[in-house]
Formats: sequence, C-alpha cells, structure tokens
Amino acid sequence: MRLTELFSKTSKQVPADETSVNAKLLIRAGYVDKVAAGIYSFLPLGQKVIDKISQIVREEMNAIGGQEITMPVMHPKHLWEQTGRWKGFDVLFRVKGQAGEFALGPTHEEIVVPMATHFIKSYSDLPKYVYQIQTKFRDEPRAKAGLLRGREFLMKDLYSFHADEKDFEKYYEKAKVAYKNVFKRAGLTAIETRASGGTFSKYSDEYQVVCESGEDEIIYCPGGDFSENTEIAAVKEGKQCDLGHGPLVHAKTIEVGNIFSLKDKYSSAFGLVYTDRDGKQKPVLMGCYGIGISRLMGAIVEVMHDERGIIWPRTVSPFDAHLIAISDQGSETSKEADEIYQKLQKAGIDVLFDDRNDVSPGEKFADADLIGIPARLVVSKKVGKGKVEIKERDKEASRVVSVEEAVKFFGN
Amino acid sequence: MRLTELFSKTSKQVPADETSVNAKLLIRAGYVDKVAAGIYSFLPLGQKVIDKISQIVREEMNAIGGQEITMPVMHPKHLWEQTGRWKGFDVLFRVKGQAGEFALGPTHEEIVVPMATHFIKSYSDLPKYVYQIQTKFRDEPRAKAGLLRGREFLMKDLYSFHADEKDFEKYYEKAKVAYKNVFKRAGLTAIETRASGGTFSKYSDEYQVVCESGEDEIIYCPGGDFSENTEIAAVKEGKQCDLGHGPLVHAKTIEVGNIFSLKDKYSSAFGLVYTDRDGKQKPVLMGCYGIGISRLMGAIVEVMHDERGIIWPRTVSPFDAHLIAISDQGSETSKEADEIYQKLQKAGIDVLFDDRNDVSPGEKFADADLIGIPARLVVSKKVGKGKVEIKERDKEASRVVSVEEAVKFFGN
Repeated sequence: MRLTELFSKTSKQVPADETSVNAKLLIRAGYVDKVAAGIYSFLPLGQKVIDKISQIVREEMNAIGGQEITMPVMHPKHLWEQTGRWKGFDVLFRVKGQAGEFALGPTHEEIVVPMATHFIKSYSDLPKYVYQIQTKFRDEPRAKAGLLRGREFLMKDLYSFHADEKDFEKYYEKAKVAYKNVFKRAGLTAIETRASGGTFSKYSDEYQVVCESGEDEIIYCPGGDFSENTEIAAVKEGKQCDLGHGPLVHAKTIEVGNIFSLKDKYSSAFGLVYTDRDGKQKPVLMGCYGIGISRLMGAIVEVMHDERGIIWPRTVSPFDAHLIAISDQGSETSKEADEIYQKLQKAGIDVLFDDRNDVSPGEKFADADLIGIPARLVVSKKVGKGKVEIKERDKEASRVVSVEEAVKFFGN
Repeated sequence: MRLTELFSKTSKQVPADETSVNAKLLIRAGYVDKVAAGIYSFLPLGQKVIDKISQIVREEMNAIGGQEITMPVMHPKHLWEQTGRWKGFDVLFRVKGQAGEFALGPTHEEIVVPMATHFIKSYSDLPKYVYQIQTKFRDEPRAKAGLLRGREFLMKDLYSFHADEKDFEKYYEKAKVAYKNVFKRAGLTAIETRASGGTFSKYSDEYQVVCESGEDEIIYCPGGDFSENTEIAAVKEGKQCDLGHGPLVHAKTIEVGNIFSLKDKYSSAFGLVYTDRDGKQKPVLMGCYGIGISRLMGAIVEVMHDERGIIWPRTVSPFDAHLIAISDQGSETSKEADEIYQKLQKAGIDVLFDDRNDVSPGEKFADADLIGIPARLVVSKKVGKGKVEIKERDKEASRVVSVEEAVKFFGN
C-alpha cells in the first residue's frame, strides 16, 4: 500500500479527553478514530491488526475443536429475564423497538444455551464447542482507557458443553494451552492467574499482562509457578515462593483473557439437559472462554511502545515492512524505490510504501516510528543502487543489504 | 468436518412463524438459528457461507481500491441530529446509556463523513475509498422474510470521496463492474436496474435478482439492455425493446445491492471540504455502495433450491463435498470411507463427512439434499473398493469414479 493512497494520516493531535497511552498512540498513528468515549472506528491500519489478532485466535480455537458461529448483538428481553440478568447486569444497554425490548449482548450465554437445546439431546451429542468473534457492549460509567475498556468492543467467546465434570476439566486444560499459544503468538507475556469464579464456581483463570496502566492487580512468582488476583490472594508480596524462585511480586496488570466453569448455571436456566447412557436426564455442564480482541490490541500498545511510537510484534503488525524513499520526485532513486516496492510485494511481503514527495526524511522516519511496523527499509542515493538500509523498530542499529537479502529477512 | 462433531443437526421442524423459503430451509438444514423475528444466529454451516460471500465481496472491493475498516454499531445522537435523521429515519433503533443517547447504525454516513474530515483536506488527498462488512440494524415493523429483511443483518458498505463529478462518475463505472463480478461469482444473475436516487440524486442503480418472493418489482428487457424499478418506470410490460430483443418483462425481484451518488449531502452536513489546486474550498462529493451479505445468502436460497433442499453454487457452499458412508460401524467399508475422508482433506478438499452409524442411507441422502453441498460422494460396498459414486446436487445422474478422479473433479 502506498502511503499517499492510505485513507488515514498520522497526526500530532489527539482528542483532549484521551489520557491512555494506547488511545493516544493509536489515534495519532491512524489506527483508530474516536467516535465517542469508549467507541472507536478501526481505520485500515487498525483493521489489519484486528484481522491478524483474530486470525491467531481463530486458528487456536479451531485447533481445540471450536466451530465458528456468529450470534446476534440484539438479545430479546425474555431471555435475560430467564437468567435474572435483565435487572441484575449493571452495565447492560437496553433497547426498545417496535417488537419489544432487547439487550445489546455484553456476553452470549442467553443466546448460546437456548440454541444448544435445539441440537444437544443425548450423551452422543456431547461434547461440543462453539465460538464467535463478535462486537460486545457494556454501558461503562467511565470509558477512559482507550481500547482497554470500551463501551463497544470486539471479543472472542467460546462456549463448551460437556456431559460431566471430568470431560469439562480435560477440555479446560486444552483451552489453557490454546490460550497460552494465542498470547505468545500475539507477542505478549500473559500470566495465568487464579481469580474468583464468581457466584457459581470456586475459581477461574485469568490471563494477565503486567502493565503499570492496568486495572487489575496480581501477586505472582517470577519463576512462573504461582499467580493470584489480589481479589482472592491469601499471600502477600515478598513471601518466598515455595519452589525457591525468590519473593512473590505484586504487579498491576491488564486482563486479556479468562476461562471459567459455568457448571450448570445457564443450562439449568434454559433446560439444557441430555439423556445419558442409562436413559437418565442430566444437566449439561458448560465452560466459557473469553479473549478481548480489541483489548488485546490496546494491551500490546501499552506494553510495546517507546517515546517515539508503537513497536508491533511481527505477527500482528499491519504490514511486514515500512519502505521509505528519500528522493526527489522523478529522480533515479524515486524510480528505484518504486521498483523495490514492486519486487517486495511480488515476493509476498506486505509493504507500506512512504512515497510522499512533499515530506522531509525526518518526518518520514518519525511517522515510521509512530506507526511501529517492526522493519523499516530505506532507499536513498546514499544507500546505493539495488540496496536498502534495514532497521528493526526495536533496535538502534541498521545495516545495508541487497534487495534479495531483504526478501530473505522477511522469509524467516 | 465429521457430521457427528458438527454443532448443528438437520430438523423437520421450523418455527411456526417462519413463512419464507430461505428461513425454513436454512433453519431446517442447520445454517441459522432463530433468536427473534428478523434476528438469527449463524451456525457453523451458515458462518462458512457468510465467510465465503464476504471474501468474494472483499476481493472485489479491494480490486477497486477499497480499504477495509470497521465503524461502530453505536452512533452518538448528535451526529444523527446533524443530518436531520435522528427523527427522520423511521426504522432507527435508539438506545439510552449512561453517557447519552445512541442510534444503532442502519447505515454509516454519520460516522464515515466526520471521520473523513480528519484525513481529507486537500485535492491531493482525493479520491479515497473505504468499506466495511458490519452488522446493521433496522427496527422493521414486520420481519417475516428470513434473511431477506432482518432487524439485524450483515452488510458491506463502501463510501467513495471525490474532488469532482467526473472523478465520481469514473469510479461509479468501476464499482458497477465490481458489483457484477460479486454477484456472478456468488452464482446469482443480478439485473442492473435504474431506480430512484432519493431526494438528492436523479437516479441510483440497484442489483435485482428475479424471484417470485421478492419485494421489489422491475420492468426489464431479457436481452439485458434495459431495466427499471417500477417505482420510476415510464414504460409498461409488453412494450417492444428498442434493440429488438422482444417485449419488456415484468418481474418480482430481490434487491441484493445498490450504488448511488450522495453528491455533497453528507459532506456539507459535516463540513467535509477540500482545498483545490487554486486554493479554493470545495465540498467533497461522495458515492455509496451497498451489498447485503446476509440478504445475498437468503436470496441464493430463494433462487436455488428444489423440493428437497438448498442447491448452493460451488463458490459459496459451506463445504466442497458431502461424503456419505453406507456401512456398518467397524466394517471394511466404514474404514475405507474414513481413509477416503482423510485423502480428500489432504488434497485440500473441504469435506463434510456423514460418519453417522445410527442413520439409514435414505436419511443421509435426504440430509445431503437438504444441506445442499453441490457434490455428493458415496462410499459403499456396492460402489467398490477405492471408488466413490459422485453426484452433483443439481443433476440427477451419478457416476462411479476412483478417488483420484474425484480429487481431480474438485481441482477444476
């Protein structure tokens, strides 16, 4: 993509009420556009990041047998009354239409469980796993953390259905592995953390990313064998880890995912039962597994940036390479930059090509740092014919290589 | 995918209030699940069809320079007041939250135009093209046509921004070609039809699919050189076509897409102006291009079905092949069917494998016809070892071929 054709532009301005690092950088770099507090449009650059994160999540959910579906945004009131959440859920958006009242789905148990009653009747129909990547809504009183706490946000939620506790637990462990894969592939270190299970389960597991701007707090062992949300932690910071990894540490964190047991809470509310091998009716047991896709994007920016801008992990970067031409319009170098752009594209490398003529090299470099694509390539007279200067966003040093070597670099 | 693992099942029952062919077949075959009138969940089979249609649309929009974005569902009231549509738009869902009132987007001019003011300032920033595939909402008084008229539905909307009428017209012609490609690739014959342009433009173009259950009506020449929506048609059915193709025909139709000029209606409302080469400020001209993704899915079913079920075009079918094993559990044939399933998958063919043991061949065939995957493969003792009986959904004849030949069939 040529920068002169890209819909968005970088900016030095951000809306006055944006205080979070992720919102400021994502708006300035042209990833998102603010519509209202906690409500953003995803611009072409942001859409590409969302698509890449979604694809990682999708692959890992498919790998544990998840089948993708889409449930609606609008949920009839009677379903939320049936679970007691029409009045009980404090951040529910409610809509009155010609055909009655609806909730805007903040979570989808009220839809997925009645749906499952149409297909799950017998032990032979179990287990089953469905997930969606869908927009969710929460009427947050404050929405000041950019993509970390939106009124409208994108989530993956998977629901699993089981005949018994043992089968649920087996899947729960598989889901844990898939979750670790997701966060690792997205470039994040997420700490699996014990947390409250709410009213119907003893524990849940949260995936927490250490970050000073996070709203959560954990006590954890840097050796990796222990982490608890401070909501339930019985131990204190400084206590020695049982496995000899040294003192436990307190940290502020961003919750990027959670998995928990729903037992039969929602299946009982909607009569989701199955007939077992002995002909007896039993409640279906459920698990619920969430990942905030847009929040994950925000968390990556919170954790991976410097004073100049964003530093995307390769796997979720909107482009593989940011190509900059330092040249006058119509010059030899300008023509060569164009040829290199075509060559890279042909080699399957997705390139953002800063082909602007009316902008200084310094401004181009500053924009590249702000946008944060992990590899920057520069074509200039100084670098020489058939060559590019390659610089990784998270390193200071650069080196001059041939175009062929540059292609190989991206092949790794 | 093994049918025994698929989340959905076929059914002989449909909700009593569903009268449309598309809803009845899509529910019975397990593509969608009804949540409320005009509100459906897309089950794994339906999700795959939606994904394939979306991908066709995406490729054609990218081919005409469209850049994908996602704008929010929730639109602040003040933006809709600014265009006079907060009160003027009769099917608008309105939501009151802690931070004010919102519309649930039925269309996105109120979002895309203020957004464009952040990036379009000069003639050198034009033209620009953005699109999204996003859930939209209309508070329909009646929603009885299944996916043809939903309260919640999936749409692609592209918005183009131009410096002048000439540039707009050039792009409009390109969009027409892209639209024709989309419908053709999705297996539909869509007739480009002149229609009313609303209050601010003389004409628009609609893409109409001839179908008895459609809500629209057109007068058209079967030779392909003329079509007008009856809302504006000055000619009558039976009049001879000017080019000698015979009499004009009247037909009921489903509108699957439309493209129209917005002139400066919305750009003026939000002050979207640009500075031209002479330093003068001019309003940006806009075009708007819609395709109902979920409606397109419904239209395909309305047009392509028989008394037994759906007949998907290859390009949007949830699977390439429907493999049926006629065998007892643990038998030689059952093992062979399993091997053939693996072989086909390895060859890159996406197979739905009816591996059920407790179901008669007749029931399996009936389900295959209902689900409507265009090619059915049968493995049985009668067909013989290393062979499959291949039958296309829209043909009566079948033939027995080797597995290798079957693989080649799908390679075409």
